Amino acid sequence: MSKTIVLKLGGSVITEKQNPGVIHTTRLQAIAETIAHHRDLPLIIVHGAGSCGHPEAHQYRIPDGVGRENAAGIGETHRAVAGLNSTVVSILRDAGIDAVGVHPLCGSFAEEGRLISFETRQLAMMADLGIVPVLHGDVVMDRKRGGCIISGDQLVLRIAEGVRAERVGLATDVAGVLSEGEVVRMMTRSTADAVDLGDSEKMDVTGGMRGKVQELLALADTGIMSSIFHIERLGDFLAGDDHGGTEIVMEQL
Amino acid sequence: MSKTIVLKLGGSVITEKQNPGVIHTTRLQAIAETIAHHRDLPLIIVHGAGSCGHPEAHQYRIPDGVGRENAAGIGETHRAVAGLNSTVVSILRDAGIDAVGVHPLCGSFAEEGRLISFETRQLAMMADLGIVPVLHGDVVMDRKRGGCIISGDQLVLRIAEGVRAERVGLATDVAGVLSEGEVVRMMTRSTADAVDLGDSEKMDVTGGMRGKVQELLALADTGIMSSIFHIERLGDFLAGDDHGGTEIVMEQL
Repeated sequence: MSKTIVLKLGGSVITEKQNPGVIHTTRLQAIAETIAHHRDLPLIIVHGAGSCGHPEAHQYRIPDGVGRENAAGIGETHRAVAGLNSTVVSILRDAGIDAVGVHPLCGSFAEEGRLISFETRQLAMMADLGIVPVLHGDVVMDRKRGGCIISGDQLVLRIAEGVRAERVGLATDVAGVLSEGEVVRMMTRSTADAVDLGDSEKMDVTGGMRGKVQELLALADTGIMSSIFHIERLGDFLAGDDHGGTEIVMEQL
Repeated sequence: MSKTIVLKLGGSVITEKQNPGVIHTTRLQAIAETIAHHRDLPLIIVHGAGSCGHPEAHQYRIPDGVGRENAAGIGETHRAVAGLNSTVVSILRDAGIDAVGVHPLCGSFAEEGRLISFETRQLAMMADLGIVPVLHGDVVMDRKRGGCIISGDQLVLRIAEGVRAERVGLATDVAGVLSEGEVVRMMTRSTADAVDLGDSEKMDVTGGMRGKVQELLALADTGIMSSIFHIERLGDFLAGDDHGGTEIVMEQL
């Protein structure tokens, strides 16, 4: 297993949900400063598309499938999310991080909305050399549907498995997985079912928190633990300190 | 076999060799107008890096291999060639072509300077839907060397094989393969060895014309013919008319 950390910056953390296409520049600069303090960590970043790309994906009905009549939506949607990525990468580079934008559309292929071809060895090599690849939710060509949306969350899971990450961090705009107003500090497969996730459903519009936790539990089964925490606790997460959020870990025997 | 055409725009066609980083914008606009006249053809474009990226690749000694000490050269070199790609894509889109930039660094992986992981199904799908993917010579992470340069020529061969292209066109700044001042109109494996390529060596600095012809002959063996022609004859090539250049074809039995 490598020492690589896969960090997801939630779309709602870096863009304004109410104003499509508006990027939280100040917050990104703070994030970049925090990451720069931990420059020696092998790191792979994935960010959500947030409100960027949604208007284009909606206008061209990408989720309904892509044919010749709406194929222009691939380029339009990709340009919107790649533009967000370009801003994120620039802000990271300005903070002294050797960030390089990596677009899923370029080299991967999907079927029915799931990646069936996705190389990760180049990402592991970059992280080993001190480069920070920065990926993002993107449109990807799809064997059955023509094109589809691949979320940042799907990318995080594929990358974590592919590079055998040491740990995964999901930085969000809430403190962690919430149940009855409190952060659930630790979840394992046996405790997860008993948790009422009603309070957390609002923090994720694609698939819901229940589905996300199930995927992270499957990742934990393979020995890769993950953390869900508030973006303001990013420094604590990177340092390996208590971040006040939720840890999703393998069942202790 | 698909009807897809793989078109290589030589680096010397789109950039000024004498002035690193200077792009032939006017010529690119003319190229875009010509391609726009043949909008219905499934097309994949690859362009060379020309003089873009060479200063960075040289400064960081990328061809000698990449370690932590010169890893910053990956991002710097990539940004230079991706910037050229961005200009090419913008000019094509301004002419009404649904061009989308595709960066080899994002999804591929190499070993000893050769691609060992390179997906092409997404490119075939794009071309089928009327999207024109536009790739470029790029830095790529390399299992043995850390990083390496993948030329536009290597990409052309891999894409042509991967998508089973109908034909390949190499647009250059000379009329074709030259021998004793004349264009060699047709080459097959049995006639190629007899051709004196002395006049053509100047048109290619990476590997030479002899190596390029050998690779195109190997492609012809698989049933994919290729043409080398002057960029001003691009319209004729796309129309399937006589372009005055060289055809590299399978041995006729």
